[in-house]
Amino acid sequence: MGKTIAEKIIARAAKEPEVRPGDIVWADVDRAMMDDILGPRIQIAEQLKELGKPVWNPDKVVIISDHYTPPASIHQAEIVKFTREWAADNGIQKYYEFEGPCHQVMAETGNVRPGMVVLGTDSHTCMGGALNAFASGVGSTEMLGILVTGKTWLKVPETVRVLWEGELSANVMAKDISLRTIGTVGHAGATYMSVEYDGQTIRGLPVDERMAITNMAVEMGAKAGLMPFDDITEAYLDSIGVKDYEPYQSDADASFYRTYQFRAEELRPQVACPHEVDRVTEADNVRDVKIQQAYLGSCTGGRLHDLKTAAAYLKGKKVAPGVRLLISPASRSIWREAGRLGYLDILAEAGGVIMAPTCGVCVGLHSGLIAAGETCISSSNRNFLGRMGSKEGQIYLGSPLTVAASAAAGCIRAAEE
Amino acid sequence: MGKTIAEKIIARAAKEPEVRPGDIVWADVDRAMMDDILGPRIQIAEQLKELGKPVWNPDKVVIISDHYTPPASIHQAEIVKFTREWAADNGIQKYYEFEGPCHQVMAETGNVRPGMVVLGTDSHTCMGGALNAFASGVGSTEMLGILVTGKTWLKVPETVRVLWEGELSANVMAKDISLRTIGTVGHAGATYMSVEYDGQTIRGLPVDERMAITNMAVEMGAKAGLMPFDDITEAYLDSIGVKDYEPYQSDADASFYRTYQFRAEELRPQVACPHEVDRVTEADNVRDVKIQQAYLGSCTGGRLHDLKTAAAYLKGKKVAPGVRLLISPASRSIWREAGRLGYLDILAEAGGVIMAPTCGVCVGLHSGLIAAGETCISSSNRNFLGRMGSKEGQIYLGSPLTVAASAAAGCIRAAEE
Repeated sequence: MGKTIAEKIIARAAKEPEVRPGDIVWADVDRAMMDDILGPRIQIAEQLKELGKPVWNPDKVVIISDHYTPPASIHQAEIVKFTREWAADNGIQKYYEFEGPCHQVMAETGNVRPGMVVLGTDSHTCMGGALNAFASGVGSTEMLGILVTGKTWLKVPETVRVLWEGELSANVMAKDISLRTIGTVGHAGATYMSVEYDGQTIRGLPVDERMAITNMAVEMGAKAGLMPFDDITEAYLDSIGVKDYEPYQSDADASFYRTYQFRAEELRPQVACPHEVDRVTEADNVRDVKIQQAYLGSCTGGRLHDLKTAAAYLKGKKVAPGVRLLISPASRSIWREAGRLGYLDILAEAGGVIMAPTCGVCVGLHSGLIAAGETCISSSNRNFLGRMGSKEGQIYLGSPLTVAASAAAGCIRAAEE
Repeated sequence: MGKTIAEKIIARAAKEPEVRPGDIVWADVDRAMMDDILGPRIQIAEQLKELGKPVWNPDKVVIISDHYTPPASIHQAEIVKFTREWAADNGIQKYYEFEGPCHQVMAETGNVRPGMVVLGTDSHTCMGGALNAFASGVGSTEMLGILVTGKTWLKVPETVRVLWEGELSANVMAKDISLRTIGTVGHAGATYMSVEYDGQTIRGLPVDERMAITNMAVEMGAKAGLMPFDDITEAYLDSIGVKDYEPYQSDADASFYRTYQFRAEELRPQVACPHEVDRVTEADNVRDVKIQQAYLGSCTGGRLHDLKTAAAYLKGKKVAPGVRLLISPASRSIWREAGRLGYLDILAEAGGVIMAPTCGVCVGLHSGLIAAGETCISSSNRNFLGRMGSKEGQIYLGSPLTVAASAAAGCIRAAEE
């Protein structure tokens, strides 16, 4: 019987000829990623010391300080310092700080490659599936085990197929695909499954846009969000100098737990309403909701294509009075490229505030919290109660284009088609 | 008898033919500036309500949210919201948010002009003296009085003259002049005086550099730091469209409380050592001190000339391993200009992290605090114990060039001459 991408990658990593959903295997981990917030400081450093074991393979471990950079308190500064020093003390060369959200940095630095098993202490690690890797978030206890053994215990997931066919309207982005999918599948609709996105629409998307989709697979409870390897994946990897990898495709007769089918032409700009990611509706349905903050950034919505799209929309326009448009590119290289291409200046001319790459805004740690009574529309991935600041605030999620259009309008607004 | 700049401006504002040091006058206030941290929320809003009085002249009031932008906590977000709403409720059109440190924004928006009396709820308001304005910091109680009456009670200060003659070496900046002056005069050496900077060296400086000097007059206890009006002042004001003002010069026979004379040729790069601004020494005397953070920014050291100088030094170099170089341009317009001119990209290429304009780093509110055991060299204006984070951290102040050279070296280091 045919196999899905997830099944093939796991079989390879478990050194098994084949695996089936429900099988429990020990798989080799190709990259173990920790961030600052849920990294070494969460029992890992302490327990590793207690075990008296070294890190199994420092070259396969990546540590990224991104949530607390730049530190907004002494406590945050101490955590970054601890993380940096722990990396050095454990021989981990792949330590990145102030470079941007971990998932983007992992991709750009070639630490996510087709066919890899990538596990990280952040729930949106699944973003790596856009590059045909089995990438998933784990807790710190699991990470401790990985650091000692280089292996992880895995139940082979069922695969849900999400097919998008047809052409997107000009005012619709991958984020809208992501939100619509989540709205349909539900926040627990793919629990512990691998979501495999495919179809003509998906295959037509650049890697930037693909990442906005796989990033949010976890918002359906998924273990992983995967995309097939194709010319676009290959060109992206080429562009960052990555040659050595082993891509996988699902077989034509692979068995899927369920298949969802969507038509791109029918998709209008979407928003997720407070306080659940799957409370998804068309942006037009909430177009009168006043906003005080618009956030363009994060590992979900701060890539070059996002900034380009927002800049194209806001060129010659101004952010509405009483609204702040905060922008945090998803990495240093994106920041630089967007700067060189003039996108950042256009966004600043329109009234946007260009900040350093950071996770801080998305997760309400610093760099732009909202007050009670304030509403934010955000290109990030979660709108949970209080996530971006006050529990008496409201968060809507939308595409970077919808964020830009809303910033200019002063209320939630989809861009014209 | 001849008069100093301060005496002339105060006489004009007090509608007196002349005033003498020690005289107590009521002077008209041309601009009253409040920031977010020490603005309306500090009794002002409450007491004004209690008094039942309106703001005397909303057109002469400027409110700038700069310390808590972007907010790093719900509390900070609430303060910015309160400040924004209070400005709107009181008819104050000149409200700026996320635009950068107040003193720079005040200058760029034409709210500081030659001959004006400018009072603000921030101690470095004295920066405005570079534009030949009598500018000074006041507390919130005083500000309340100003808001109701449009006047302030002033004791006419003595004037201390600080003369710098000769040419600066290539590795020496205005910040070194500023630090050397403070080191000599002492932190209380000009208490309640007007410091008037003059001489060939000062007159040769661009406005950007002049501001780095007057900004820190308060670090000697001064009420104001003033510079003569000249062609360079005029050209700067022209460049921002400011035409309407009344400049003042000290008379040749003006009476000064004391005159300090310095030779520019003898000046080497200076640093202020922890934890006092007047603990000033040559950078070479502490050149082995390891640093973990270098900060280029603030109303003292984040202007275009600063970024240009740092970029010229760091072009083709890299920030030393283990050091983070944080950069916060002093305003949106500086950010944009530095971006267009390529300075920001050079700094980012070298490893610098380009943040939004903010007061947060300088005063330890967010955007880059230091941990215990960490040392920062900063182009900002104060190195008090714990100001930028942990009380077990160390802060050195230096010029933007010294900050850049130190970032590359990994320890305090003056640029080569």
